[in-house]
Amino acid sequence: MPEISEVMELNRYREGEVTDDPGLVRALARRKASFGAASVLFYDRPIRMARAEGAWMYDAEDRPYLDLYNNVPCIGHSHPAVAEAIARQAGVLNTNTRYLVDIVHDYAERLLSEFPGDLSNVVLTCTGSESNDLALRMAEAMTGRRGVIVTEFAYHGNSASTTAISPGSRPDRSVPDHIRTVPPPEAFRSGDADPGATFAGAVRAAIADLEAAGHGISCLVVDTIFSSDGVYCAPPGLIAAAVAAVQDAGGLFIADEVQPGFGRTGTGMWGYKMHAVRPDMVTMGKPMGNGFPMSGIVARPDIVDRFSAQGSGYFNTFGGNPLAAAAGLAVLETIHGEGLMENARAMGEHLRAGLRGLQGEGSIIGDVRGAGLFIGVEISVPGTREPDAAAASALINGLRSRGVMVGATGPYGNVLKIRPPLCFTASDAAFFLSATEEVAGSLGKAA
Amino acid sequence: MPEISEVMELNRYREGEVTDDPGLVRALARRKASFGAASVLFYDRPIRMARAEGAWMYDAEDRPYLDLYNNVPCIGHSHPAVAEAIARQAGVLNTNTRYLVDIVHDYAERLLSEFPGDLSNVVLTCTGSESNDLALRMAEAMTGRRGVIVTEFAYHGNSASTTAISPGSRPDRSVPDHIRTVPPPEAFRSGDADPGATFAGAVRAAIADLEAAGHGISCLVVDTIFSSDGVYCAPPGLIAAAVAAVQDAGGLFIADEVQPGFGRTGTGMWGYKMHAVRPDMVTMGKPMGNGFPMSGIVARPDIVDRFSAQGSGYFNTFGGNPLAAAAGLAVLETIHGEGLMENARAMGEHLRAGLRGLQGEGSIIGDVRGAGLFIGVEISVPGTREPDAAAASALINGLRSRGVMVGATGPYGNVLKIRPPLCFTASDAAFFLSATEEVAGSLGKAA
Repeated sequence: MPEISEVMELNRYREGEVTDDPGLVRALARRKASFGAASVLFYDRPIRMARAEGAWMYDAEDRPYLDLYNNVPCIGHSHPAVAEAIARQAGVLNTNTRYLVDIVHDYAERLLSEFPGDLSNVVLTCTGSESNDLALRMAEAMTGRRGVIVTEFAYHGNSASTTAISPGSRPDRSVPDHIRTVPPPEAFRSGDADPGATFAGAVRAAIADLEAAGHGISCLVVDTIFSSDGVYCAPPGLIAAAVAAVQDAGGLFIADEVQPGFGRTGTGMWGYKMHAVRPDMVTMGKPMGNGFPMSGIVARPDIVDRFSAQGSGYFNTFGGNPLAAAAGLAVLETIHGEGLMENARAMGEHLRAGLRGLQGEGSIIGDVRGAGLFIGVEISVPGTREPDAAAASALINGLRSRGVMVGATGPYGNVLKIRPPLCFTASDAAFFLSATEEVAGSLGKAA
Repeated sequence: MPEISEVMELNRYREGEVTDDPGLVRALARRKASFGAASVLFYDRPIRMARAEGAWMYDAEDRPYLDLYNNVPCIGHSHPAVAEAIARQAGVLNTNTRYLVDIVHDYAERLLSEFPGDLSNVVLTCTGSESNDLALRMAEAMTGRRGVIVTEFAYHGNSASTTAISPGSRPDRSVPDHIRTVPPPEAFRSGDADPGATFAGAVRAAIADLEAAGHGISCLVVDTIFSSDGVYCAPPGLIAAAVAAVQDAGGLFIADEVQPGFGRTGTGMWGYKMHAVRPDMVTMGKPMGNGFPMSGIVARPDIVDRFSAQGSGYFNTFGGNPLAAAAGLAVLETIHGEGLMENARAMGEHLRAGLRGLQGEGSIIGDVRGAGLFIGVEISVPGTREPDAAAASALINGLRSRGVMVGATGPYGNVLKIRPPLCFTASDAAFFLSATEEVAGSLGKAA
């Protein structure tokens, strides 16, 4: 679930801004009539999308766009492995998990084989929000406590309870009384030499504060690459001390892998592996079915036991249906079969090296960070570390006009967030780097 | 999302109960290993399901089961129209609603054409729980109040906030302070000659109580066929006075059509049409994509406006994706093209008449009610109106051994809930009625 900061920085369309393209004008009118005020569109001039393949999307005029934005189609847009898997299963059986269905067990076992032995139970849901919503309930059942710690600009979902732990999606960044926010482990602007220690200190203070307030610590929920906070993952072990503090206090660590999960960071299947931590629960979604709506929680069995014993059980009508299992199997098989994790690592290094080559005097590229194909590029006022959201916005729009789609994140909306399908190629990278050199160069100061 | 009462009355499997079928034993072991305590299975002896078509499902031994339970595959299991629609779309484009995609607008317009003119905005989500969760937030944004009225055994979802308005899914039926429960408009056991007036009286008292407590009335949420409360929909206009009381007090009426919607009641597309009311919001899910995970809210535009103005907007990564639109279009076209609403009406009348033919002295069939292919059969101690959950359970298990799947509902777990795919035929009805005559007869008392 993309963050609101992305939306803002992709320049939400406002009614009446497009008048010159009858097809686009008509599509906008249709959208407005049916979806009303709830409609949110990318760009001042939204794109009427017609088809997509690999890392490329094509609009109604067949203009190509290199997709560095969408992390859902992780194995590539319209991948035949998923299309064929769901087509085959849809003609045979689609039902719920209160019957035994072999392909559902196949998927559950395949997914769990990507986790250490103590994370051996799975609950299948439909959206990342559902997974985080349920994980909060499970943590409360396990600990008997309500206090939750999240980062200042976190995004963890769109349900009532996950919106409450998503200050990044609330205009005033407020959180209810049983939530505490901590700054993310940021090092570039702050110059912090040990962001992990600072982060752990903030988490320890939040635990003490929650205990003093009578809430106690239920869990720490962290997107393991801090996507909406601005993309942070270095150095290795970054959040280990913070997680230890929570677990030592009897709280749980929930690794939100909805965005970094499924091989994107190149360092393994899950972002938490960068941090030398052992989650108590892992939530996942977005790329899990390459666009088929599916999500899940992988947890320690004792947590599932405790939750199940306290209530009447959890049932999700669509969660774990055989089509989702078929799609999920195709995704895992393709990630491994096509070496996409390795490609994410190699292409990520290549992209970061290329982007660093565009830094230097007068450049708006202040910092280049991330892991694998989850890259953050901090756009700064040249010669300073000051966030430059206007330059980021100009860069995003300039890239869009050159056929490259990329978003921004972070509280200032100045961090380019680069997360293309994992089948991204060296030629895709060259196209992107060339466009970025051109646009960023025009936005920087002459040296 | 089926209710917990269904689960209980379908006799949850308990570990170790099945030992004689190696394939089933192995499937149960696999399920237990991966899903752990969260796994909920139908029947003492769960079914290992292999394929399904129309109103029939087939287990791993190819034993057929007539499906009178599952209301998700509304146009029939494995319907080729949906399989082909999602297969076609999966090979072309699957993305989110921040781009303009024609098929998504096609679907939104097609869906909205099933509603009166003032219900003209749609928000697309992935599960019924997500729809009800969001509808509660929208109602609070619109009214500035938090109080919610639901029925005593209601089920409206599995997220934290929808679990709070689902006393039927909580072992102690408790609700938080800002929720009030009212008895459903029951007439058979109570002998109430005007259940609508009684219901309206309870709702008026709940409004007054919420106002006195300082919560005020945000909304009344009603499953328009009171599925988990025991299936109530007669006489026509049943809930009109209650809805008027809420709307007169400035509250909203949310029609939860997750179970009755999409033609099942035979009286129109939506269950609320039986009640001569005008909802402010309608939530839907289950049958919307015939098993493809999708759901939605249809609402008055002023409610969408108000909600959107107060926050940062609502975005759902998978909600309204082009595959869902393709599936949803196929469902609506098939309901109309195959005359499934008319079939639901005719087959429902036929089934109810046949079931009433099994009533009489010594019969356990106390009451037969419902609309279209959403039928409730109250199982009672013969000669009384006393709920007989044991007989209902024995009937369900007896029917299962004869190849008929049906569930139970209501606070006593004694109401058979009959809701087959809408393509149900006269020969399916004959099969079911014959099996029911045999099993129910053996459970009744000799006259």
